[in-house]
Amino acid sequence: MENKINLDELTINSIRMLGVQAVNAANSGHPGMVLDAAPMIFSLFKNHLSFNAKNPKWFNRDRFILSAGHGSALLYSTLHHAGYKYTINDLKQFRQWASKTPGHPEYHIDYGVETATGPLGQGLANAVGMALTESFLAAKYNQKDLDIINHYTYALVGDGDLQEGISQEALSFAGHFKLNKLIVLFDSNDIQLDAKVDLVYSENLKMRVEACQWNYLKVSNGEEHEAIAKAIKQAKTSDKPTLIEIKTIIGFGATKQGTPSVHGSPLNDDIKTVKANLKWEYPDFTVPNAVTDYFTANCLKYGSQLETTWKQKVDKYAKSYPELYIEIKSALNGDIFNNVGNLKTIDWSTIIGTNPQATRVDSGNVLKLLSQHCPTLFGGSADLAGSTKALVTDKDFLPQDHSGRHIHYGVREFAMGAMVNGMTLHQGTIPFGSTFLVFSDYIKPALRLAALMAIPSLFIFSHDSIAVGEDGPTHEPVEHLTMIRTIPNFNLIRPADTKETIGAYLMALNAKNHPNAIIVTRQNLPQLANSSIESVQKGGYIVSNENNSKPLDLIIIATGSEVSLAIASQEQLWTEKKVNARIVSMPSTFIFDKQDKTYQSKILPKNIVKVAIELGTPDGWYKYVGNNGFVIGITTFGASAVDKVVLEKYGFTPNQVCVKINEFLKDNQGGNK
Amino acid sequence: MENKINLDELTINSIRMLGVQAVNAANSGHPGMVLDAAPMIFSLFKNHLSFNAKNPKWFNRDRFILSAGHGSALLYSTLHHAGYKYTINDLKQFRQWASKTPGHPEYHIDYGVETATGPLGQGLANAVGMALTESFLAAKYNQKDLDIINHYTYALVGDGDLQEGISQEALSFAGHFKLNKLIVLFDSNDIQLDAKVDLVYSENLKMRVEACQWNYLKVSNGEEHEAIAKAIKQAKTSDKPTLIEIKTIIGFGATKQGTPSVHGSPLNDDIKTVKANLKWEYPDFTVPNAVTDYFTANCLKYGSQLETTWKQKVDKYAKSYPELYIEIKSALNGDIFNNVGNLKTIDWSTIIGTNPQATRVDSGNVLKLLSQHCPTLFGGSADLAGSTKALVTDKDFLPQDHSGRHIHYGVREFAMGAMVNGMTLHQGTIPFGSTFLVFSDYIKPALRLAALMAIPSLFIFSHDSIAVGEDGPTHEPVEHLTMIRTIPNFNLIRPADTKETIGAYLMALNAKNHPNAIIVTRQNLPQLANSSIESVQKGGYIVSNENNSKPLDLIIIATGSEVSLAIASQEQLWTEKKVNARIVSMPSTFIFDKQDKTYQSKILPKNIVKVAIELGTPDGWYKYVGNNGFVIGITTFGASAVDKVVLEKYGFTPNQVCVKINEFLKDNQGGNK
Repeated sequence: MENKINLDELTINSIRMLGVQAVNAANSGHPGMVLDAAPMIFSLFKNHLSFNAKNPKWFNRDRFILSAGHGSALLYSTLHHAGYKYTINDLKQFRQWASKTPGHPEYHIDYGVETATGPLGQGLANAVGMALTESFLAAKYNQKDLDIINHYTYALVGDGDLQEGISQEALSFAGHFKLNKLIVLFDSNDIQLDAKVDLVYSENLKMRVEACQWNYLKVSNGEEHEAIAKAIKQAKTSDKPTLIEIKTIIGFGATKQGTPSVHGSPLNDDIKTVKANLKWEYPDFTVPNAVTDYFTANCLKYGSQLETTWKQKVDKYAKSYPELYIEIKSALNGDIFNNVGNLKTIDWSTIIGTNPQATRVDSGNVLKLLSQHCPTLFGGSADLAGSTKALVTDKDFLPQDHSGRHIHYGVREFAMGAMVNGMTLHQGTIPFGSTFLVFSDYIKPALRLAALMAIPSLFIFSHDSIAVGEDGPTHEPVEHLTMIRTIPNFNLIRPADTKETIGAYLMALNAKNHPNAIIVTRQNLPQLANSSIESVQKGGYIVSNENNSKPLDLIIIATGSEVSLAIASQEQLWTEKKVNARIVSMPSTFIFDKQDKTYQSKILPKNIVKVAIELGTPDGWYKYVGNNGFVIGITTFGASAVDKVVLEKYGFTPNQVCVKINEFLKDNQGGNK
Repeated sequence: MENKINLDELTINSIRMLGVQAVNAANSGHPGMVLDAAPMIFSLFKNHLSFNAKNPKWFNRDRFILSAGHGSALLYSTLHHAGYKYTINDLKQFRQWASKTPGHPEYHIDYGVETATGPLGQGLANAVGMALTESFLAAKYNQKDLDIINHYTYALVGDGDLQEGISQEALSFAGHFKLNKLIVLFDSNDIQLDAKVDLVYSENLKMRVEACQWNYLKVSNGEEHEAIAKAIKQAKTSDKPTLIEIKTIIGFGATKQGTPSVHGSPLNDDIKTVKANLKWEYPDFTVPNAVTDYFTANCLKYGSQLETTWKQKVDKYAKSYPELYIEIKSALNGDIFNNVGNLKTIDWSTIIGTNPQATRVDSGNVLKLLSQHCPTLFGGSADLAGSTKALVTDKDFLPQDHSGRHIHYGVREFAMGAMVNGMTLHQGTIPFGSTFLVFSDYIKPALRLAALMAIPSLFIFSHDSIAVGEDGPTHEPVEHLTMIRTIPNFNLIRPADTKETIGAYLMALNAKNHPNAIIVTRQNLPQLANSSIESVQKGGYIVSNENNSKPLDLIIIATGSEVSLAIASQEQLWTEKKVNARIVSMPSTFIFDKQDKTYQSKILPKNIVKVAIELGTPDGWYKYVGNNGFVIGITTFGASAVDKVVLEKYGFTPNQVCVKINEFLKDNQGGNK
């Protein structure tokens, strides 16, 4: 017993020292949390967390999210100790160029990092998304004798996480839907960056989380790792998600422990004080052999056993429930993000008509068809399903029945965004979230992290322009297309009709390493003669050719609802003045920019006047039209009126477009140089 | 008594009917809340709200915010009944082009609309900002015998508001800081757009708000307007902010009352049912004379008396406390947004040095000086004051002392943003908020509403590029400059050194009708020889001239930290190859775009090759460089490493810039056409 306790403490201190030495070596980082939260993370990894460091992608592993991402050194040090790929040299390279140990955790599943964190609060919502996915898959696929999906989701959060509004959305969602396999460890050290927490915050946390239908537990001394293990054990018996508040002393062992000074600056020489207080006598960047033998070896041993046992279970499942097994096989194998099944077998013609239709309706029809073919299509809307039409055709996901696929996210846009990221990271379903495009504002921080992590999160944003009409400028996106397109590695797709909407979904569902937003209209759009499911996937293509009888005068580039406007203008330009225009539909600049130069210059040859038309800020289009063209866009806010009136007042009728183009051509003497 | 009750009910029903008739006339809008919340808004306006409809700008009025902005018809109808400018014809024009009654409330103080609402949750945080301002001004300026600042802030919220994460940030802030003159009426109708609330939400609201240190009251029947009045009276005695949950039946009186069906679609013919149930027998769009005599006349009479009494108090204050009076005179007169005092008397030279310095330090120095000259400078940071340096030199604003000017917003970025909007709308202080630029993501929805409202909210965003370095890509903004610049009517200012930072503040403080974000660096920047406080205010100017001995070869446009890089490149281009460049510093494209064409083409003459350099997404710059130039920007995420390493890896050294420019000039044969 004596020996065991010593080894526990030695391991905890080893995790601490490797972490703060990394911070010292980088001369940059956050030592405070490394020192205070090492016991809780040790306790979790040693006693509860199911993982196999040799196969970090093992599907039925427990998920662990360090939501307080500034504690990255703690995470890397712990993962090193637990047997993951992180080497001592990786720790020495903390915060250096091209290292595996950046300043805040970036998604790196091969090394055991489940998600990128740092922007506070989002890690907690990622965890809710993961727990949601686990509970859904378990409810849908587990059989009485075979629980092939059966794991916990843990998050470690700090004061900052819980001050962020998204934490309330996440707590509220998880509590309502009884995601009882979600367990949150709260590193309650009473300190935040600028000050002691009590200078800015006096919530009664117990009341707050209990109000959210959570189970609340408290460990009054964060050094007592066995008490923490016991609390986690207790949490596992609850029918609610659990938050365990663990009182700690930030910068434990440092001279300025318990103050903001140890939060975000290296210890420098004070590391000596820490060493003395922890009775640490090993050389720098050294993990004692006793720790490796005791902790690392056991982690590896048990991890491997866990996966082996699970695999036997899966084999049995495959035999006993072959049809169900097929549905989730690729997920269980951790092969791909999106378990999309065979999209090629879907007969899209059933939803392609000739009547004008809003692309939100097209989008709803696509989801309806997908619901039949993709049994793990799993998503919903932030209280706007009736408007965005983003509905899975299945029963609701309910607190008392987790097997439904239609999620009511509630008016919780930001948490929805971060949850969709968590669901995508978890793998096993095709998750999505939806709201009005204007409220993508609320989700921007999560859109960014999806792009940074290079994961195929899927969002459906409807009501995509000032054509929203009566609801007025608070509900009319203007700058949002540009906002989303300018996030690096983000694919925004704005289809123009039914066929393009189908193509948009195919593009999104086949994506592996970038998030996607499908942007759809509130208003009806005509079906285009030459739109194409396949061409959409090139990002941009000629949707209406110029007249071959005469040289090309100009190219009109348009997206979404403006493509039909461009085609109408094309006809009028030709009829009235024999101006010969080509219409390029450009649903995704992101994908078009990835095409080879030959294709790009075939679609958009140099030295031809180009006009871009879009119901949004023009900034992004100058790249395509250059000096030798112009953009018909919007640089002000929208207005409240009937949609047709708004469109006319803002100059988006064929006639107004033709006048502008003719004037431009006149001023520029034919234009092409 | 009998008669009085009848008139109350008649007024309530008159408010209801005018509202739902407006929705019916528009064939668009939200009747549900009009019908259920009319009694509470009537009760507030009749019994408690201090206002003078003839002078909606009266400084000491109580503020009323309809946070649930989709209830706009209720607001317009109520304001009509209360004697504000809204006419019956305005109500008939609900949701029509150029009407005063848009689909969601837009800021229109002349008509009594205190803020724009619709994007949920923000109205509540606006209200917190207003209550914060009131409490500060009262603590700082009221004297024992003279409480010239003494008013309440009321907000009416719905379920959606309280599901948004920002509501938690707002509740938490207001509760902690004991803003006890904030009273929130919660229209608790159990219905949201997609479903019954209990399908998605099961928070114990009483526990939640009490956990946030609020006073919670409940009125179990929302039809009992006298009970509501009593609850508000009770709330006024609390030393905490109060939330009054008022149980209502959505669409009261309609066939489908109590269901989502009456939330967001016109009643159409079912208005007959409502009329029958309410025993309403007046023609459409008719307010009974009895109501006008009883309610409107009294509102006007008491309102006028209130302001008159207050003015007498102010006169007395002016005589008794002349020095204090001078400080808040313009605020009390409601003249201007920013009570900036005489900025011209400030001697800026004391903070202008010759050593390299981070513009965040410059910004801190400006705020320090401003603190001395502007007694109502009032702001802080979202737990990053130590890093952003956005500090007022004064004591902290504390729960027990509301007279301090340094606000600890806590890790509540979004609420901070919406609070700054509320503080700006309230008038009387120079409010600001601050965080890292990358976290402007969290505030985007509030930045947008500030721009839509055309109010001069001020934000200071530091750590403005990948030069953040070690913290890595989660903390390194890339697309954010473009994101903020493309919000219509938003002025982003990115200064290049101390003088430009001073100029940036002067530009922001003198702004009347647009919000401003001052963007500052983490890293040191050299002091530029020819930068200028005045020229900054032109948006863009020549900060380093070309060599007169030779024709101009190209213009390099840069902002912030890239201006000194551009100047260094200019020198190297000349020394190495006699390439003659002009350097334009463009701290604000927003203001530069407003200059006359003569000025613009003097700075950026046509037909000269232009290169833009900025540590961010290039999209916004193509407008300026056109086809005949290029942009040195970033289209990927940043990286974690020492800042100098990151900058070099991303190509932002003078040498790398020169190589790119020389190559471009070579490929384009001298370039200028």
